[in-house]
Order: sequence, then structure tokens, then C-alpha cells
Amino acid sequence: MPNPTAAMLVIGDEILSGRTRDSNMNHLAKALTDHGISLQEARMISDDHGVIVGHVQALSGSYDHVFTSGGIGPTHDDITAEAVAEAMGAACGIRDDARAILQAHYDKSGQELNEARLRMARIPEGATLIDNPISAAPGFTLGNVHVMAGVPKIFEAMLEGLLPTLTGGAPMVSASLRIERGEGDIAGPLSTLAEANPDVSLGSYPFTQNGMHGSNVVARSQDAAAVARVMAALQKLFPTGT
Amino acid sequence: MPNPTAAMLVIGDEILSGRTRDSNMNHLAKALTDHGISLQEARMISDDHGVIVGHVQALSGSYDHVFTSGGIGPTHDDITAEAVAEAMGAACGIRDDARAILQAHYDKSGQELNEARLRMARIPEGATLIDNPISAAPGFTLGNVHVMAGVPKIFEAMLEGLLPTLTGGAPMVSASLRIERGEGDIAGPLSTLAEANPDVSLGSYPFTQNGMHGSNVVARSQDAAAVARVMAALQKLFPTGT
Repeated sequence: MPNPTAAMLVIGDEILSGRTRDSNMNHLAKALTDHGISLQEARMISDDHGVIVGHVQALSGSYDHVFTSGGIGPTHDDITAEAVAEAMGAACGIRDDARAILQAHYDKSGQELNEARLRMARIPEGATLIDNPISAAPGFTLGNVHVMAGVPKIFEAMLEGLLPTLTGGAPMVSASLRIERGEGDIAGPLSTLAEANPDVSLGSYPFTQNGMHGSNVVARSQDAAAVARVMAALQKLFPTGT
Repeated sequence: MPNPTAAMLVIGDEILSGRTRDSNMNHLAKALTDHGISLQEARMISDDHGVIVGHVQALSGSYDHVFTSGGIGPTHDDITAEAVAEAMGAACGIRDDARAILQAHYDKSGQELNEARLRMARIPEGATLIDNPISAAPGFTLGNVHVMAGVPKIFEAMLEGLLPTLTGGAPMVSASLRIERGEGDIAGPLSTLAEANPDVSLGSYPFTQNGMHGSNVVARSQDAAAVARVMAALQKLFPTGT
């Protein structure tokens, strides 16, 4: 059975202006690969209501899961919750369960649960809360859309709680061989090997180190035996990686 | 006049598996911001012919420019050139100008221009070559799609040559204030300020340092005077950033 599929939406103008370098996509990619969910695409988009609605609808209709990061804080530019609610046809308002979580958190720290902070209790009707062990304000799952924070530590903590609740498939097994020859020298035999093993995805990633051109060849499959077979053939083609 | 718009396609399974962390998107984002081109979205997609064709068509029809990275090397998984050609309705084959560039490069280094390396001379008809000062194999511009390498050093070198040939608008001016208070404390006045200055994009980006919650507030606009006005108001609201 093929693995469940997923897409990611990284939401935030600061990513598109280059001011902030996203790290959540790479973290999610590795975590999903380990969990046996296949990340098929990721999109970085701006903090714009209509834009978010459009992409959520497109992706939630095409993949088993959609993961979002960003835009669920207390400030005016945090508009992800409403946009996801609209995309999925749900109402969105302050929810008592989320408010109670925030109230307990701010009571403990002696801070006021003011109007701005209360924005973080806006959760769509019918959504399941995602625990935030760092700063309390929850994420949520609505349909097949999992809405999480943009701050990497919080995103990662939310994902750690969420992922075990999602059904994964067979994790992808991968192995790589570092070959100290340029891609142009290995491409021919590599192509023949790839054609002979359609169940294994064979990728070649060039590198340059101290003026030397080399390639990392990566074999990936859900079938560990197939990966081992291809790696053995690779090592035969390029003994000791040369 | 609004700035030209752009989208990016980062092409490569290794990005989606999490094995490789993309850095080209952030580099492009900063370069475009400086050049006065507005990056509206970026998509990371897999090395799949049909997938690439679909996204190139969707984005090239929606934005002034599309920049791609990845998939133009000599190996079997390098399929970007053909896919972009198909998306744009152009034929694609070995082109003499590209072949001459490769031949000169490999003659100089004493390497053979073999069949695999010759794949890098496949350039769509009607495309303009993009210079590759690192490893010779050119990128290309076809219509409004700019196709560049995935290796960051080569991507960056190609972009450096390409960007001055593209018409930019007024560069975005930005300024930021580091405020040592949590977002929840500043969100109210910030929202009022944002509403009063619709010509300035005002973003708030939380951070945590040594257990202290703070916010970086960023004001962005093509109008430098408007940014200065908003920053002055911000400093009045939050003297010495507190």
C-alpha cells in the first residue's frame, strides 16, 4: 500500500522577503520520512487571507495531510486560524477549551490574558487542539489540516505530539554512497542501474570539495532489501567510492 | 507602479525527503527584495516530469517571473529542461551554442564530453542561456521562466549574472525594532499602528532568548518616508525597545 501523502504550507511574509530562513520544512520533511508519510510538496506563501484560503483548499483536496506553520500568534498579522477555518467551511471564534489553557498558563506566569493573547484561543469549530508544551497557545487539526506555530521550537514540539497520532506507512529506507567522481563520469552506469530497479528511487547529488567534484548517490525505497541490492550493485560499479 | 512579481520552484526529491536543506530560496528571496522584484510564493516539488510541467504552467501564467533551481545536471534524475520546455510549448534538444560551451570547458580540464555530460547541452528552442561561471553548463531563460542549477554556489553565480538583466521596481525598504516584551503585550498598539498605516507592511516576529520573550517588529514599504514615520511611532510606543 502506498504511504499516506502530505503537503506543507509555510505561511509568512518574512520568509518570502528573505528576512527569515525557514527551518520547519526541513524538520517536517525528516520527521515525515521517518514516520512513513510521503511529503509531496511544500509551499511558502504570504500572510494574506485569500492566498491562505486558496492554498489550503488546493492542498487539502489533493493530499492525505496538510501541515501549516506560522500565523497563529496574538498580533494583527496572525490570520492563519480564520483562513483555515474559512477554507474548510468551519466557523471560528474564541473557544472555551483553548481559553482555559491560556488562562491557566498566564495565571501561572502572572501575566494578563488580554484581548491580544485571547486571539490565540480562536479555534475553528470541530477542530482538535494540538498541544503546545512550550508556550501553551495550542495549534489545531481541522479535517486533514494540521495548523502549527512558526517559531521552530514550538513547531517541533507540536509536531512531536501530533505525529504519533497519525497513521504512517512503511518508513522509507535510504542509503547513500559517496563517489569521488563528477556526475558526468557516473551518469551512464547510474542511469542503467536506475532503469533496472524501478522500485528504488536513485538520486545523484553533486558536491565540490577542495576543488574535487564528487557525487552522493542516494537509493531510497520502502523495500529495504531492494535498497541493499542497489547499494551492492553501486559498490560494484564504483569500488571504494571512486 | 507595483513591483514585478515572482515565484520560485525548488525541484528535487532530496529536499522533500529532508536529506538536503534548501538554501536557494532564501538567497533568491533576499536578492529579489534588493532588486525590487516581489517574491510571492515558493514551491518545493519532486523530480517528476508531470509535476514540474504542471507547476511551471501554473506559476508562469500567474507571475511576471518564475525562477527554478535543481535538475539540470547530467544524471538520469535531471529532467528539468525537458519539463520546462514542454510546459512552455518549446522543443528541447542538444543545442550547438551550449555544446560549444561544454566542449571548451571539458577540453580545458582534459575531461571527455561524454553522452551524460552532453545532456547538459539540452536547451529549449528560443531560450536564452544563463552563464555558469563555476562549472560551465548553462542555465536558461525561456519566456518568463529562469532555469538554474540546484548546487547553491552555481545557483548564486547564475543569479548574479541574470538579475541585472531583469527590470526591478522600487526596492522594499525595511526597518526593524527589537522589543523586549512578548507579542501579547504589544499586539494591541501594534494593530492600531498597522491600521493607521496601510501603505506599510508591519510584521511581528516573536523570539525567546534566555527565557525572555521578545518581538522583532519589522516595517516594510517601497516608501522610505513611510517606513521612517512608522518606526518613529513605534519608538514612541515602545521607548528603548521595551
